[in-house]
Amino acid sequence: MDTITLVGPLADRDTWVNDRCFMARALAVVGTRSGMLLLREALYGTRRFDQFAQLVDISEPVAAARLAELVEQGMLVRRPYQEPGQRTRHEYELTEKGRDFAEVLLALWQWGARWVPPEAGTEFVHAGCGEPVTVQIRCAEGHQVDVGDVQFRLKDS
Amino acid sequence: MDTITLVGPLADRDTWVNDRCFMARALAVVGTRSGMLLLREALYGTRRFDQFAQLVDISEPVAAARLAELVEQGMLVRRPYQEPGQRTRHEYELTEKGRDFAEVLLALWQWGARWVPPEAGTEFVHAGCGEPVTVQIRCAEGHQVDVGDVQFRLKDS
Repeated sequence: MDTITLVGPLADRDTWVNDRCFMARALAVVGTRSGMLLLREALYGTRRFDQFAQLVDISEPVAAARLAELVEQGMLVRRPYQEPGQRTRHEYELTEKGRDFAEVLLALWQWGARWVPPEAGTEFVHAGCGEPVTVQIRCAEGHQVDVGDVQFRLKDS
Repeated sequence: MDTITLVGPLADRDTWVNDRCFMARALAVVGTRSGMLLLREALYGTRRFDQFAQLVDISEPVAAARLAELVEQGMLVRRPYQEPGQRTRHEYELTEKGRDFAEVLLALWQWGARWVPPEAGTEFVHAGCGEPVTVQIRCAEGHQVDVGDVQFRLKDS
């Protein structure tokens, strides 16, 4: 099975520790299943606390704790709002940082749709042309790249 | 902040439960930080048990438990091998199902490199042309799609 090729000083996996790995750093920011699913809901436009808890199917205390973490990490902002005759409530809005997590979630969806049956009854499409979207590995030259043709290297090497 | 647009019967988020969400299903298969980082190592070509534990920086019991889960889920296969004069050991090899998780991990890397400083000292490039790779949302017509132009809909709707 072709894997990513480690290049140059990275080739000997016994000689370096991956202490600057950005996958690990990203997972340290949003490393829980419920955190990711709350971001999914935010990406679907959900804003109200009770909806988040219900739609992710987690208890309100867990939802409150996870949403507070996402706010602290700058993925969501918490804003007060008030409906007539009601007390002030808060809603949660996606930031650019949180919105930028969409590729991760769509990649998870794509993998799940391929590998975890049954078949998907839903799909993500491009609003402009109606065609299904996928998450693809592409290089700056525009080539679509197979994982086996990816190299991991030091920058400027 | 533009989000994914829910279309048709999906538009009213109060009327449906996301019980077939493939993000959630994918996270149920590989939902732990250490599980994802073990897959990262497998994608970098790591095969030996002691290397997995060391490179992900987790204890051997945790590594053993997580690797067993990944084998059970069909992400890795466990194979015996024997070096001269040594007892039989096992190595772990990536399956196609595990290899297909690369888009998720590269999307995490891309997000982390953008949002979790300091700047990356490493990069992923296309072996063929040497240009950096990114994870992109594309539709079947080849358009590169912004998250705000993604629609989520029922299939064949």
